[in-house]
Amino acid sequence: MNATAAIGVTGLGVMGRNLARNFARNGHTVAVHNRSVGRTRALVEEFGHEGTFVPAETAEEFVAALERPRRLMIMVQAGEVTDAVIDEFAPLLQPGDMIIDGGNAHFADTRRREAALREKGIHFVGTGVSGGEEGALNGPSIMVGGSSESYDVLGPMFDSISAKVDGESCAAHVGTDGAGHFVKMVHNGIEYADMQLIAEAYDLLRQVAGYTPAEIAEVFQEWNRGRLGSYLIEITAEVLAHTDALTGQAFVDIVTDAAGQKGTGRWTVQTALDLGSPVTAIAQATFARAASGQRELRAAYAGLPGGTTPLLSRTEAARFTSQVEHALYASKVIAYDQGWKMIQDAAAEFGWKIDLGSVARIWRGGCIIRATFLDRIRAAYAADPELVSLLGEMEFAMEITDAQVPWRETVASAARRGIPVPAFSAALSHYDTLRAERLPAALLQGQRDYFGAHTYGRTDRPGAFHTHWAEPGRPETSD
Amino acid sequence: MNATAAIGVTGLGVMGRNLARNFARNGHTVAVHNRSVGRTRALVEEFGHEGTFVPAETAEEFVAALERPRRLMIMVQAGEVTDAVIDEFAPLLQPGDMIIDGGNAHFADTRRREAALREKGIHFVGTGVSGGEEGALNGPSIMVGGSSESYDVLGPMFDSISAKVDGESCAAHVGTDGAGHFVKMVHNGIEYADMQLIAEAYDLLRQVAGYTPAEIAEVFQEWNRGRLGSYLIEITAEVLAHTDALTGQAFVDIVTDAAGQKGTGRWTVQTALDLGSPVTAIAQATFARAASGQRELRAAYAGLPGGTTPLLSRTEAARFTSQVEHALYASKVIAYDQGWKMIQDAAAEFGWKIDLGSVARIWRGGCIIRATFLDRIRAAYAADPELVSLLGEMEFAMEITDAQVPWRETVASAARRGIPVPAFSAALSHYDTLRAERLPAALLQGQRDYFGAHTYGRTDRPGAFHTHWAEPGRPETSD
Repeated sequence: MNATAAIGVTGLGVMGRNLARNFARNGHTVAVHNRSVGRTRALVEEFGHEGTFVPAETAEEFVAALERPRRLMIMVQAGEVTDAVIDEFAPLLQPGDMIIDGGNAHFADTRRREAALREKGIHFVGTGVSGGEEGALNGPSIMVGGSSESYDVLGPMFDSISAKVDGESCAAHVGTDGAGHFVKMVHNGIEYADMQLIAEAYDLLRQVAGYTPAEIAEVFQEWNRGRLGSYLIEITAEVLAHTDALTGQAFVDIVTDAAGQKGTGRWTVQTALDLGSPVTAIAQATFARAASGQRELRAAYAGLPGGTTPLLSRTEAARFTSQVEHALYASKVIAYDQGWKMIQDAAAEFGWKIDLGSVARIWRGGCIIRATFLDRIRAAYAADPELVSLLGEMEFAMEITDAQVPWRETVASAARRGIPVPAFSAALSHYDTLRAERLPAALLQGQRDYFGAHTYGRTDRPGAFHTHWAEPGRPETSD
Repeated sequence: MNATAAIGVTGLGVMGRNLARNFARNGHTVAVHNRSVGRTRALVEEFGHEGTFVPAETAEEFVAALERPRRLMIMVQAGEVTDAVIDEFAPLLQPGDMIIDGGNAHFADTRRREAALREKGIHFVGTGVSGGEEGALNGPSIMVGGSSESYDVLGPMFDSISAKVDGESCAAHVGTDGAGHFVKMVHNGIEYADMQLIAEAYDLLRQVAGYTPAEIAEVFQEWNRGRLGSYLIEITAEVLAHTDALTGQAFVDIVTDAAGQKGTGRWTVQTALDLGSPVTAIAQATFARAASGQRELRAAYAGLPGGTTPLLSRTEAARFTSQVEHALYASKVIAYDQGWKMIQDAAAEFGWKIDLGSVARIWRGGCIIRATFLDRIRAAYAADPELVSLLGEMEFAMEITDAQVPWRETVASAARRGIPVPAFSAALSHYDTLRAERLPAALLQGQRDYFGAHTYGRTDRPGAFHTHWAEPGRPETSD
């Protein structure tokens, strides 16, 4: 067999198949391989006309079909299956060859695999691919880790298959080893927060403003034309406008109100806890999904009293809607700011050099959180690559300033009326925590020193101090 | 050497030394051992008169000093050090012997170690010991895992050294394998939430009511005589009343406002995410500590605008104080409820049979969160061992009902005035989420089906459904 394929894809589930077709459609010769050969044959039979495919029935055939340095992309289940596939192919490769993992691996696994394969001279390129089935076929957002040497070869290929916005590719080498999968994980965490914030805005418009789902769909359509413009707002309007054919009811009212999750939101929060990055909006969004599925607990709380909830008049409702738009936008800026800070904290922890603006750039298209305001985030980091927070940029700071009264009134209203706003209020508390001149964390340090002799710092001199609380006069000593 | 010791303690840091003294003071003959013999000799020299100690210089001597079945307690650093000590002693033991780990191990490590040692016939008893140095010496709260067979032997010994409340011991066998360390972890998670809630109440009294730390100390003293009565409220009053000798300022004002953590709050939240238990107050408390230490981020947010904060009049302040008491109490009940539900979820996941009332019973004394209301929690589970939520008990439900207006007004006030209340608002959102008849999670399921074909349930029939959003008429199919 001649080595003619520019890339090989093994694992021809829907994501692998669509990526393979995307490569082929963009002029790359693609070797395709699957554990059971049926899928390989079906792909070539059904889509062979889209480009040049080289079907391989065995691992050896597959590897032999690849041009050197070989580029072998694995699209299989994350976890043990990925390890098994790597173990199968690595012995067949040579130094300089590249294994690209396009699955949803945990970045820590990617770091482990990269280190192990680096010892054999093989590049392991953990790659986050966002955009689902449709994105994989027509242009995903691609977040690439691994060595920059491998990206020199792979970059142009990824550029060719990725989504494009304003003529720019939505693919980038975000950093070494696990950085690609890390950034993909944070993308999903932000997606959780964004969806929960939208859900809370919907709930407020429904329960406080008294709007119907169809009316709220119109509100979201209008918002979609403004600064909130995004794929998630757009599809929210479509979901809310949809009528269930069977019952004639609003679709949203016949759907079970228990949200599922696939784990990346959870990973984001667990990792943020290790990093000490306060991603509270993401955490609240993740827990809100968990709470919605706690059937017994919901039954135990059912019927407990809430706030006062007289509906607003139509005039008040219109004013309230504009208030909620401010609250949603401000909370969304905070949620995104939490995600970007988490990436910065990880970069410091793992030694990644991440161009924060390029992360915003490649999320403008192809992925679930694509939104017009990502271009402003890109621009903010382009203007100041050292920006610690989006609120350090003038325009975002002004918007947050403008949002003060409506944002606070929205959260206050929800508290009084008994509407759950875990993510809205987490975002507001995050903002108020970080801008506080003095935090009651000082009291916590006093408590911790009291019961556990954990020591505390002083504002007026360096060092660690301990107060002997049980002794007369409570003398203080320093370490 | 004669085997005369009822128990042996290896690792004579302050916790190990104090536990060894506690055993000796209660009439048990205690073999003591430390990697460097200096500590062993110092212990016997300084405290030998308190009871019967058998100093051992080598591992073999130590094991030989123990009566069969041997009870060997290791009090060393969690993690690799614990594994190393186990590896050192296990080969010297015989079937039926017991290794008790009284350190702060992660419960997953305890499960792993228990399974490995069980194969050799050795009982591994992961034991949570709460109460710090002082508790270890004078009576800790002791949460014991491992086999019930081992507890038959160990129970009376733990009873003798534990704290006592109303004549009852604060030690219990909470469940098999890692259950003891799990429950200890949740204790610490609840402790994080409780401390953060107290800190938020202090911050509100300071910034909204305009009270001085000394005045707030008096408020806490008064609260300590009521339903909030607890060790943490008591020491908060003491910390707030304390004046810094060097500056003459209130102590709390000279302490650096960046809170430290030792990891168990983090473990609790990470584990809760895996279990799907919404411990949002604990999560917010953990992230609040992290945020307080984010120096660069705080600098970036400094100076951003907040709410309106005119101080209250003295009369208004008094009314506000009572309002905050309600909010603190209600939030605390929710935080504890989250912790207990997490224990229930873990019991279901890991096959533990946990007497939820006994967890409350052993936390009434010896540990940091000891409080009068734990006796009511104990009584609630005694009356109904299947209680899903504390709010299923009449008195708690009535208190929460009474707290509605002041709790909601407190959170609304904080939002308007720009005081960060991450844990107060998380507790309120948790309450409103769980009592909601319909959650906007239904919208989330619609979004997830739209962009990822994740399917959704219907309220009117069983099964998993998918809407073909891109097709005309949006037909629905079921799996």
